[in-house]
Amino acid sequence: MNIKLIIEYDGTNFNGWQMQLGPRSIQETLQEAVYKLTKEIVTVHGSGRTDAQVHALGQVANFQTEANIPPTKWAHALNSVLPVDVKIKKSEEVSDTFHARFSAKSKTYNYLIYLDPMPSPIYRNKVWQVYAPLNMDLMAAAVQSLQGTHDFQAFCATGRTVKSTVRTVYDARIEKRESIYSFTITADGFLYNMVRIIVGALVAVGHEKLPANVFQKAIATGDRGELDITAPPHGLYLVEVCY
Amino acid sequence: MNIKLIIEYDGTNFNGWQMQLGPRSIQETLQEAVYKLTKEIVTVHGSGRTDAQVHALGQVANFQTEANIPPTKWAHALNSVLPVDVKIKKSEEVSDTFHARFSAKSKTYNYLIYLDPMPSPIYRNKVWQVYAPLNMDLMAAAVQSLQGTHDFQAFCATGRTVKSTVRTVYDARIEKRESIYSFTITADGFLYNMVRIIVGALVAVGHEKLPANVFQKAIATGDRGELDITAPPHGLYLVEVCY
Repeated sequence: MNIKLIIEYDGTNFNGWQMQLGPRSIQETLQEAVYKLTKEIVTVHGSGRTDAQVHALGQVANFQTEANIPPTKWAHALNSVLPVDVKIKKSEEVSDTFHARFSAKSKTYNYLIYLDPMPSPIYRNKVWQVYAPLNMDLMAAAVQSLQGTHDFQAFCATGRTVKSTVRTVYDARIEKRESIYSFTITADGFLYNMVRIIVGALVAVGHEKLPANVFQKAIATGDRGELDITAPPHGLYLVEVCY
Repeated sequence: MNIKLIIEYDGTNFNGWQMQLGPRSIQETLQEAVYKLTKEIVTVHGSGRTDAQVHALGQVANFQTEANIPPTKWAHALNSVLPVDVKIKKSEEVSDTFHARFSAKSKTYNYLIYLDPMPSPIYRNKVWQVYAPLNMDLMAAAVQSLQGTHDFQAFCATGRTVKSTVRTVYDARIEKRESIYSFTITADGFLYNMVRIIVGALVAVGHEKLPANVFQKAIATGDRGELDITAPPHGLYLVEVCY
């Protein structure tokens, strides 16, 4: 039976999604939870890796099991053995052809920027705090040019090779609520560190250190150039994966 | 020189405001920070104690110093030696008669209730998560009767003796934003655990387990009676102290 999970996690004390020797990963924590319940050694396939300290409200994963647990009961069963910082929101049976990564049609990420001239202990692991005012009009203008199908070669961390760097951004917007600037982006896929590279430049635009056409230029030239700041991981949330 | 501080803290890893043998307290952490900067042994007087895991956005404290640091620079100086979970938002000189506790005219607390049928790792230390739907109309009706000057004897944790249990509530309201129910209360003072006892009953009203007139009855009878649930500390925020 192929089980699909929707997962929320606080990434603060994880070394990211992917299992590795040593540090605590979300993937391994989930696999251990399945083992505790069923003594099965499974591979839990995620929709994609998230880096250390990145959070998820709706990460999706799937795994094959022979265990006699009803599909919708897996959420409660796993939650009973999972630690407090990773929990299943929903579980269901899916067809054997479903794969959390390869079947994904689009993903939505959210990035929270918090403006306060003095450091904030309460928000520290959940937002990127900036200290200087942000020009919302310039940021909103910059975000416009992300929409559509483009070659995002310039928006990719170096040292990664992918077949194609063309992606379609279905929606990109920035909203302000009190001191929180919330950037949301939906695309058919993302290059490595793409959202954090966008947000790094977006904050520089807000601080009037980069022009509002910075994304337009980077798309046109394919040159990372001014996109040299990678926003920190702890403001980033994987919100939803659509199939 | 008498210095007034406005302090934000994430109470998760503190054993509350008050210094005690052993566990980490906010008061002692601040006193140690002053010592690191000036080698002075001072007493930092808070506007009131907060319990373990209770947060503050605007706790106020004061201390006497002989050190040659300009009053408004204390915030940055202390922040340079304070841990990440407690930071100073503002510092200023006040008259020698100012005392953070005895000079306080009113305080505002906020309590966050988060409704989600499945456990939430991301919010876990910052809200009280409830799993069953809440009736907002009943909660809003209940909150009405808190306003005004009343004997709040029924709203006090047992084992504490205070001269008077009469308090004036200037404002009490509950607001809903997406899945967060935010209860805010301003009064000239609070009895021990008063806000958490109110919120415990308020959630029971929302769950239709207590009638909406529960506070009216408790004020009239002075009997704690149905106010038997104390909401957990980690949803509570000391927002502001006015002088």
